[in-house]
Amino acid sequence: MPTVSDRGKLMPDSPIRKLGPLADKAKEMGRKVYHLNIGQPDLPTPPEALEAIRNIDRTILEYSPSEGIRSFREKLVKYYHKFNIEVTVDDIIITTGGSEAVTFAFMSCLDPGDEIIVPEPAYANYEAFAIVAGAKIKSIAADIEEGFALPPIEDFEKLITPKTKGIMICNPNNPTGYLYTQEEMNKIRDLVKKYDLYLFSDEVYREFCYTGAPYISAFHLEGIEQNVVLIDSVSKRYSECGLRIGALICKNEAVRHNVMKFCQARLSPPLIGQIAAEASLDADDSYMLNNYNEYVNRRKFLIDGLNRIDGVYSPIPMGAFYTVARLPVDNADKFCAWLLSDFEYENQTIFMAPASGFYTVPNKGIDEVRIAYVLKKEDLAVCLTILKEALKVYPGSKVREKVAGSEIN
Amino acid sequence: MPTVSDRGKLMPDSPIRKLGPLADKAKEMGRKVYHLNIGQPDLPTPPEALEAIRNIDRTILEYSPSEGIRSFREKLVKYYHKFNIEVTVDDIIITTGGSEAVTFAFMSCLDPGDEIIVPEPAYANYEAFAIVAGAKIKSIAADIEEGFALPPIEDFEKLITPKTKGIMICNPNNPTGYLYTQEEMNKIRDLVKKYDLYLFSDEVYREFCYTGAPYISAFHLEGIEQNVVLIDSVSKRYSECGLRIGALICKNEAVRHNVMKFCQARLSPPLIGQIAAEASLDADDSYMLNNYNEYVNRRKFLIDGLNRIDGVYSPIPMGAFYTVARLPVDNADKFCAWLLSDFEYENQTIFMAPASGFYTVPNKGIDEVRIAYVLKKEDLAVCLTILKEALKVYPGSKVREKVAGSEIN
Repeated sequence: MPTVSDRGKLMPDSPIRKLGPLADKAKEMGRKVYHLNIGQPDLPTPPEALEAIRNIDRTILEYSPSEGIRSFREKLVKYYHKFNIEVTVDDIIITTGGSEAVTFAFMSCLDPGDEIIVPEPAYANYEAFAIVAGAKIKSIAADIEEGFALPPIEDFEKLITPKTKGIMICNPNNPTGYLYTQEEMNKIRDLVKKYDLYLFSDEVYREFCYTGAPYISAFHLEGIEQNVVLIDSVSKRYSECGLRIGALICKNEAVRHNVMKFCQARLSPPLIGQIAAEASLDADDSYMLNNYNEYVNRRKFLIDGLNRIDGVYSPIPMGAFYTVARLPVDNADKFCAWLLSDFEYENQTIFMAPASGFYTVPNKGIDEVRIAYVLKKEDLAVCLTILKEALKVYPGSKVREKVAGSEIN
Repeated sequence: MPTVSDRGKLMPDSPIRKLGPLADKAKEMGRKVYHLNIGQPDLPTPPEALEAIRNIDRTILEYSPSEGIRSFREKLVKYYHKFNIEVTVDDIIITTGGSEAVTFAFMSCLDPGDEIIVPEPAYANYEAFAIVAGAKIKSIAADIEEGFALPPIEDFEKLITPKTKGIMICNPNNPTGYLYTQEEMNKIRDLVKKYDLYLFSDEVYREFCYTGAPYISAFHLEGIEQNVVLIDSVSKRYSECGLRIGALICKNEAVRHNVMKFCQARLSPPLIGQIAAEASLDADDSYMLNNYNEYVNRRKFLIDGLNRIDGVYSPIPMGAFYTVARLPVDNADKFCAWLLSDFEYENQTIFMAPASGFYTVPNKGIDEVRIAYVLKKEDLAVCLTILKEALKVYPGSKVREKVAGSEIN
């Protein structure tokens, strides 16, 4: 049998999906599994999108342009304008999800051996896409005690080598929910300018900022317009993860020229997805406001609940719909697997993503999990109870030890 | 400004799409442009697929499994069985078009510097996907005089080095329409077995074989079951290019394990596309038969017509819906560009793909074009007239020279 690629072996297992088989087994045993592991919102897709799909009147489902349907891109120009992001139709290239946008950005800007600096914990698949491009991620761990604020910019600068080509951020952040401040963004801007780096900025959660603090796009930073590659997606914004529609937005023509070659090779992004995504831009304000309010409530409810469980700590996320929480356990990977394979509370259990998969710094996040608040409040209440009960009996629980210890004394 | 990647610079411009801007200009000038350049069928998508899309009753368009929807994969097992391809649900991984299937196959099996051997002319994007994977294509040119039959297997063997990891074929072939014989496939099998290579086999045109000669799938070859990676797509079969749904089919578990990591990184293939593709498998026999008969007629009409034009020669393609024809011109790249920018016949012109982009062997195919017979017969008749008239006046035409010469004598 021929050997498989080393690159494939290097690819990390998805921290979000790797415990899936255990969840499937739990379900086969008749257990209800609450999915807190994956950023799949339970909120409805805009009716405008569903209507557009149902009203498709084509007889042939043909290729669309490699860069995406023009009318959709024109509408996106207006959408970004609302966030003071001033781009032209030519700056916008539609991709097959945000995933493809990151992949094409890396492919177009980085060569094998090139390095990018990423603050961690970070969306796990950045590492995967870097491996696809043969590039290397150098990471700096943010600290849960600091609420996952941007690590000191001096730490970024220390990592810069002649191979460093860029910095990648996610803002608002997945998995931490942190929202970078103007001051932090300015520091990033200065470093990008000083070393003429790319700034890859994943801003798919811009609609979900909860504290009144402003959302600072990479395109709001003056003087680095040619260095910014913005990553976007309709998945989370409109509960349209299944459409696989994203965008790569860049004012640098040389980058776009490269990106278009990768776009042409894969022919076109999904047609129906684009039609639905375009229609979603017509969703009325109440759609987004309802979703927003729902997340505000869930966030408050979840974070309060987590911090009331003995030994659990979660910073207060400012955006997106995740939090990274610290649990009183020996190892969150083991705990999350155990929850699915060995635990049930009233025949129910929870599926969380161990945070270790969001770090490349060894041993970081060993007792942390990412929780997505994509379930309604009543379900989150059950999840909190399950977590609390599980921590009482999990063999590697520090709370259990304490309880056991106090029983002896 | 930071520099862009060398990999991006290496990426070929699409030979199918690179003349697009010239076509756009011609259209802006009010000219009708007949698209013979791209394999975008004008035949209808199955009504079952359109109906499935219109009947979507979901309120959330969520992620599907990374490997694709199970019921779709189950139905594909039965579909392949009809072609004596015996695979299980686990062997089938749904991809975002055949493009992603080729990319993931290369990514999972090949490391940077690894080589694959490809008979040419070949689908241009194999080269692009090889560059994405950092792999190298070594090519052997098939000859138009031999009707693009498989070049001598000894020529393949001569190219094998310690870096050679596989052979890639497309059968029935894009761009030539050639269908490999049992004897040719056996020779490929023996070489694959002897050197323990991968056989990447793109079989997206299996429904379109016109000569009564059997379609030999790579999975029909005994003894190399673990070496075969089959590439498939619903794009051409059902006129569903816009859905972006393909498949990678492989019995080698180690390969599939690698492929699944790339699949998980991009989360999932398009949801609506899968629903439509699954419904397409219910299309009744008359749907495929009508399309088949239409291509049979067009093929006869086009090839007859081409060979009647002075100096033009096309072999008779046995499958798919393309032919590679030799034209009496100095340079087909120039001629195809000239047709769009400088020529019109009754305010109409044709867009053909220069064949040079389907070869990596230098100077091969310099006077050849790929023509897709994806237009109805009446349109093909107009195209033939345009081609004939163009050859009379194109400055680099050899027929023109002859005419001009005979005028002098």
